[in-house]
Amino acid sequence: MGKKDSPKNIDSSSCTIMPDDSSDSFLTENKPKSYSGFKVALAELFGTMLFVFMGCGAVGAVTFSEEMKSIKPVVVAVGFGLGLFLGILISNNVSGGHLNPAVSLGMAFAKRIPFRRLQFYIPAQIAGAFLGAALTFFIYTGKINEQGSKDEATASIFVAFPSQAVSSMVIMYSEIVLTACFVLVILCSTSSKASKVINPPQAISSILGLLVLTFGTVTGCSLNPARDLGPRLFTMIAGWGLEPFKAHSFFFWIPNVFPYVGAILGSTIYVLLPK
Amino acid sequence: MGKKDSPKNIDSSSCTIMPDDSSDSFLTENKPKSYSGFKVALAELFGTMLFVFMGCGAVGAVTFSEEMKSIKPVVVAVGFGLGLFLGILISNNVSGGHLNPAVSLGMAFAKRIPFRRLQFYIPAQIAGAFLGAALTFFIYTGKINEQGSKDEATASIFVAFPSQAVSSMVIMYSEIVLTACFVLVILCSTSSKASKVINPPQAISSILGLLVLTFGTVTGCSLNPARDLGPRLFTMIAGWGLEPFKAHSFFFWIPNVFPYVGAILGSTIYVLLPK
Amino acid sequence: MGKKDSPKNIDSSSCTIMPDDSSDSFLTENKPKSYSGFKVALAELFGTMLFVFMGCGAVGAVTFSEEMKSIKPVVVAVGFGLGLFLGILISNNVSGGHLNPAVSLGMAFAKRIPFRRLQFYIPAQIAGAFLGAALTFFIYTGKINEQGSKDEATASIFVAFPSQAVSSMVIMYSEIVLTACFVLVILCSTSSKASKVINPPQAISSILGLLVLTFGTVTGCSLNPARDLGPRLFTMIAGWGLEPFKAHSFFFWIPNVFPYVGAILGSTIYVLLPK
Amino acid sequence: MGKKDSPKNIDSSSCTIMPDDSSDSFLTENKPKSYSGFKVALAELFGTMLFVFMGCGAVGAVTFSEEMKSIKPVVVAVGFGLGLFLGILISNNVSGGHLNPAVSLGMAFAKRIPFRRLQFYIPAQIAGAFLGAALTFFIYTGKINEQGSKDEATASIFVAFPSQAVSSMVIMYSEIVLTACFVLVILCSTSSKASKVINPPQAISSILGLLVLTFGTVTGCSLNPARDLGPRLFTMIAGWGLEPFKAHSFFFWIPNVFPYVGAILGSTIYVLLPK
Repeated sequence: MGKKDSPKNIDSSSCTIMPDDSSDSFLTENKPKSYSGFKVALAELFGTMLFVFMGCGAVGAVTFSEEMKSIKPVVVAVGFGLGLFLGILISNNVSGGHLNPAVSLGMAFAKRIPFRRLQFYIPAQIAGAFLGAALTFFIYTGKINEQGSKDEATASIFVAFPSQAVSSMVIMYSEIVLTACFVLVILCSTSSKASKVINPPQAISSILGLLVLTFGTVTGCSLNPARDLGPRLFTMIAGWGLEPFKAHSFFFWIPNVFPYVGAILGSTIYVLLPK
Repeated sequence: MGKKDSPKNIDSSSCTIMPDDSSDSFLTENKPKSYSGFKVALAELFGTMLFVFMGCGAVGAVTFSEEMKSIKPVVVAVGFGLGLFLGILISNNVSGGHLNPAVSLGMAFAKRIPFRRLQFYIPAQIAGAFLGAALTFFIYTGKINEQGSKDEATASIFVAFPSQAVSSMVIMYSEIVLTACFVLVILCSTSSKASKVINPPQAISSILGLLVLTFGTVTGCSLNPARDLGPRLFTMIAGWGLEPFKAHSFFFWIPNVFPYVGAILGSTIYVLLPK
Repeated sequence: MGKKDSPKNIDSSSCTIMPDDSSDSFLTENKPKSYSGFKVALAELFGTMLFVFMGCGAVGAVTFSEEMKSIKPVVVAVGFGLGLFLGILISNNVSGGHLNPAVSLGMAFAKRIPFRRLQFYIPAQIAGAFLGAALTFFIYTGKINEQGSKDEATASIFVAFPSQAVSSMVIMYSEIVLTACFVLVILCSTSSKASKVINPPQAISSILGLLVLTFGTVTGCSLNPARDLGPRLFTMIAGWGLEPFKAHSFFFWIPNVFPYVGAILGSTIYVLLPK
Repeated sequence: MGKKDSPKNIDSSSCTIMPDDSSDSFLTENKPKSYSGFKVALAELFGTMLFVFMGCGAVGAVTFSEEMKSIKPVVVAVGFGLGLFLGILISNNVSGGHLNPAVSLGMAFAKRIPFRRLQFYIPAQIAGAFLGAALTFFIYTGKINEQGSKDEATASIFVAFPSQAVSSMVIMYSEIVLTACFVLVILCSTSSKASKVINPPQAISSILGLLVLTFGTVTGCSLNPARDLGPRLFTMIAGWGLEPFKAHSFFFWIPNVFPYVGAILGSTIYVLLPK
């Protein structure tokens, strides 16, 4: 869209950080390399906070509201999908709007950001997700207290627990495969070779919504270690204690490790696929 | 989108009202400063009228239609979300399509409009919301009369009443935090630094839909003092008397004050966030 | 989007038919005045046919499918909304994609098309809607025959009948007010002064979906005389006889007259509103 | 969007393969003719794999999840619609993102790709759909085994069987007519004469979602021979044996033949329609 003749973009295409997709991808565009690590961290923190606020807020709504009964999966998918859209809208300009440590790792593997920048992205994303859980907690604290005890039912507003319905193997599999799909979509739709008609924030948010709607009720996949770890740490200090970590034989490691594997897989496929 | 070479835009970037985002944001673009206060007020009045007509119309539909029973929250969220889209489509060109006094206040704090322009925006928005409630009333008047008396159940087609489910504190909290999110999204997506792939009317409407879907059934938040005050004044003269104002110990002040607080918060965060 | 330097568009802006919005509105763009009346009629016929096929197809689906029970209004709104999108996609290039005689009349009042062109638009739209009803009929003919007799229940796949729930006055009111809103949205979003970020086919289709979702279950409004008359004529020859015309004291005249009134109202408001 | 001045596009418009729509349609843009058949096949294989994974994944979710009960048709329509969007996002750059042998045939008939290229498209699409079914199978294998035997109920996660509700004639009719609509939409929205505001991947995906939502519950139409044949072959080797092929008097030939007929029809209509 007329970017080529703008001096700012000529500058940005001469940077050496992104050899492959140097000028017009969304997650990188308007991101002069001069943004300090602090600014990037602040943008990711705010973006992830609001993303998790919306997503967990939606889970809270379907947990307590009788009116939501028949449409639960739709509300949760919209909460995370449009919640990501909200987070991207307020952060992409500075940090690219990853809001997900697995996505940041995939971006580093695809050489969109330097690996050393992960030190700003990942802690900020986890801290943001922690704060997002706190924002959600203040809304539902009355209703949580009504329930009597702080148990798995209320903790699951914030974090996933494995259901009886599927094996851990299936959850690992879905974290890997679906995160790979997600990272692949992000890399393709923000590539400098992508068609200019694609609107990356909308495309990426829709696809997250799709993944949550289609597979969320089956495997409870998170696809995002910050979205899992931040709220889990929050529940720990907010009265649920170590239960959310110890439950189901330390199940929590699965959504905190396998999305990274998926991101590396997705990034590798992207590099190998014809472009 | 080639704006730089259009004479009209060169003019508009030389104006002094919007020092930060001078040329290409949506809510400001094509808004030559020569639009008179009267024209701005007329655009806001019409836009807010149709926004409230759609939103309250949707609440009316789910109140009376048996077919809507399982999907109530979706219909209300679509009513307000796409209703805002409709209102923005017909007004943004002249007034920026705020349709919400809290948003106008946030815009003034972020220096997108001069403070003195609020005298045109806010009364027009409240009057528009009043007329929107009237347009809705004509559709449901037969069904409202069937109910026998004009009570809270039918008044709540037009305005929110606090449910037993949440405390006033939670409602205040949600008005502040969610209006702040909303204003932040508006400011970010219409900033001159925003990626050109973002479609602000669509982004802003989707996010309102998200907020209504995710938190509407829990806190009944309005995020918009005009959307509350206009219809509440309408119910007063349409047969419900002072009840809608006196109900629940003058609850109505909450949705008429706290969205302004949220807008100032959102605008402040926007100014502080790296851009 | 770079149109200014394309010779085709320079031509089109020199035409005299559309004094107000000469160069870049969607419903008019790429529509060299040289398209013959025959071509325009063919495009409108095909577009309206597929629009009605999708809309009536959706009503048929919710009539017969048990699975659709809780989500009926959503399916019907998506059927008409995205059905209009489909119709616009295949016709806008040649005819502007009105697919609705009331819209064509509104366009003529707003001087977007010459009045004499209505002789090509309106009959083609009615014929297209007739054929769209026929396409739908072939899908449901088996299920309709299972029902035994051709009564109002099955006829209402194709055309609306007044429910007990609302008075004729409310239906007239809603046809006028909602068609006025719809025409206003079309005129604003396709105006040459509209922001270039607006995607008119998507905006117009979304708003139709909103109107059908919000008010469809209440008033059964059609907003489109072709969508009513074409299928009503089809039911006449397909075995329902004159019943669909005679039912409810010749109710059918309401959806065949009042949308035109609404279109003139919407067009007049558009002309009067600041732009 | 400024393509005309990019050297790459000048090259691509001088190619002789696409006489009609040489420069800026989506499914063809950025597709230098130098992409080898192998690269095209790889892109189509990956895209179709993920499309079928999402679509069949959604059918699996509604089959097993109690929470999905009231919203089944919406989830399936979103699964296939946004699943296609995902597939197009990762493949269109190289192959145009057809992901459907009927669409590829229609493209060849409309001279968008040479007929000899079908040898790369069609086998890759069928192989991709086979792999997509495999990806889905690993998620539901536990639940499928719980059901005891591999019967039609579980096979229908992957492939359609005719319901009692409609005759084969109606299914043939719907495969032909709906595939024709789909191909017509693709050709119109990716034509070089199409309005530049149209976003083809989004438009095409929405329309597939519409067709699945509106007619999917009635006729179970596939509109895509690869989406039927690939998963059907997969079920054969995954334990269902020849049943999926033999069932209902070799019903499977219908969704494997009639979409091609529909594609030729749609392509012919496109050629005849005024543009």
